[in-house]
Amino acid sequence: MTNGQMAPPWEVDTWLNTDAPLSLQDLRGMVVVVHAFQMLCPGCVSHGIPQARAIHQAFPPGRLQVVGLHTVFEHHAAMGEIALRAFLHEYRIRFPVGIDRADPRGNPIPVTMQAWHMQGTPTLVLLDHEGRIRLHHFGQLDDLRVGAIIGQLLAEAQASGS
Amino acid sequence: MTNGQMAPPWEVDTWLNTDAPLSLQDLRGMVVVVHAFQMLCPGCVSHGIPQARAIHQAFPPGRLQVVGLHTVFEHHAAMGEIALRAFLHEYRIRFPVGIDRADPRGNPIPVTMQAWHMQGTPTLVLLDHEGRIRLHHFGQLDDLRVGAIIGQLLAEAQASGS
Amino acid sequence: MTNGQMAPPWEVDTWLNTDAPLSLQDLRGMVVVVHAFQMLCPGCVSHGIPQARAIHQAFPPGRLQVVGLHTVFEHHAAMGEIALRAFLHEYRIRFPVGIDRADPRGNPIPVTMQAWHMQGTPTLVLLDHEGRIRLHHFGQLDDLRVGAIIGQLLAEAQASGS
Amino acid sequence: MTNGQMAPPWEVDTWLNTDAPLSLQDLRGMVVVVHAFQMLCPGCVSHGIPQARAIHQAFPPGRLQVVGLHTVFEHHAAMGEIALRAFLHEYRIRFPVGIDRADPRGNPIPVTMQAWHMQGTPTLVLLDHEGRIRLHHFGQLDDLRVGAIIGQLLAEAQASGS
Repeated sequence: MTNGQMAPPWEVDTWLNTDAPLSLQDLRGMVVVVHAFQMLCPGCVSHGIPQARAIHQAFPPGRLQVVGLHTVFEHHAAMGEIALRAFLHEYRIRFPVGIDRADPRGNPIPVTMQAWHMQGTPTLVLLDHEGRIRLHHFGQLDDLRVGAIIGQLLAEAQASGS
Repeated sequence: MTNGQMAPPWEVDTWLNTDAPLSLQDLRGMVVVVHAFQMLCPGCVSHGIPQARAIHQAFPPGRLQVVGLHTVFEHHAAMGEIALRAFLHEYRIRFPVGIDRADPRGNPIPVTMQAWHMQGTPTLVLLDHEGRIRLHHFGQLDDLRVGAIIGQLLAEAQASGS
Repeated sequence: MTNGQMAPPWEVDTWLNTDAPLSLQDLRGMVVVVHAFQMLCPGCVSHGIPQARAIHQAFPPGRLQVVGLHTVFEHHAAMGEIALRAFLHEYRIRFPVGIDRADPRGNPIPVTMQAWHMQGTPTLVLLDHEGRIRLHHFGQLDDLRVGAIIGQLLAEAQASGS
Repeated sequence: MTNGQMAPPWEVDTWLNTDAPLSLQDLRGMVVVVHAFQMLCPGCVSHGIPQARAIHQAFPPGRLQVVGLHTVFEHHAAMGEIALRAFLHEYRIRFPVGIDRADPRGNPIPVTMQAWHMQGTPTLVLLDHEGRIRLHHFGQLDDLRVGAIIGQLLAEAQASGS
């Protein structure tokens, strides 16, 4: 997706680690960190999820929201909701995680993953306080660069009075 | 289990990554490295499995055999055979893996895990060329110490003419 | 030092990795990252210097300047200029490094280290585009948090038209 | 050097971390781990020295001896005895370290480094209980393989009644 473009809404039926569904609309004013992953993706487990968890712990909850998105596009039978719940429990993941909706026409790639033009997992997407996509990265990105973009987006949100 | 004791046979119905079932009897004469794990156990994924894979790659196949044992004692619905196959594929695990037999009386701890008195996962068990248990360790053990015991057992096997 | 306070000038006789001495005045308008270290300080070698080098590589040179400050307060005979030159060569450190001036009254702590109230090495100091101290940290700080402050300071510099 | 060859004696004027000079003759019967390093060699600091220290801590002192050899072949002015003492103190290195003797004819490579045909630092040399060279490795070697050779040499020493 082009940087600066508004993020389309995510399509999620089931949310874990949260009492109420999350929407981009409700998160307006906050920096949003979307970590798209699969529980059996080695790069997600070794890099992406620890990074998402570190972001969740490093920044004040009122100004930044980490959202996990379980975008299963392979091994569907092995990564259903029951398995994901066990995974979140074992890996002590506390931030909200939405299960990306299965494509009703049978495309193995789930709906949000298609709409957001993700190429695989892990994918990291950063949204500014107005809901614009400011980073859309497939693969690993080091903490220094991710931190710098987050710092910039937090400064912009603060300057805007959000 | 006491060091020096003969290892009881493992109870496995399904073997992956091998054409034929493995038995302790058939492996007599070789050093045997048993890595007991669960696919959703974080310490297994970050430490135990990489160590087992490194052992599998470092030593000549004729003198040492790495055997994975999937000892599921929790989250059974999330760690069945289909999920394990996806896991082995994604993590590029090539050594033979046996699925420890479920207890017919309903104990959540599988049969071999009970018989070998394992306390959790990961557990590393090293057997010498005569099938005696020479290391039985729950948790993480550094490569230097594991390597030293393997080196000693290989030297003993060689001295015995195995 | 209090956050927000103007940084006092550094006192450096010898500069390495630069044709001309650097001054805070000349760097006004840029974000300045000061990494105070000793070449025989293990925490500097394992954490601080790799972090400073990563910052030097990650950000555009026109907007951010990394400055090393060799603040020797112990083992003075082992960490003179010749030794430091060998160290910078072996560790492939390319950013400018100033040697903090020895105290003329014989205090083992060098002059800038005293004036900036540093407690040891490594110490990381971040200055905004107006020369104010925005971070003053002794010990290790993770890349995510350091990156976020840098991102914020870069955004402020940009908003100010620097 | 050929594996299996007897190690020639080392040429050391100054020993640190030990009350008395060490000789290969006195260490006969023990496994000897020689870690040749330079204090300003990055690969020594990040890999070789931590490995030597781990070996020193992992094995019983009566059966294995770790010996550091400071083989300075470059930046001689920066790595003299005073600097080395500061380095050993800061890096908490407790095992004996000998300073390889400078070549009296002016070759920058010190005498033992020449006699042992070392190509650079770090170099790891393992000697069995009879003083024969069983590993001679320039660069990094993983703990698993190093551990396995040590385990084999310890088993041989034990079998010989040493």
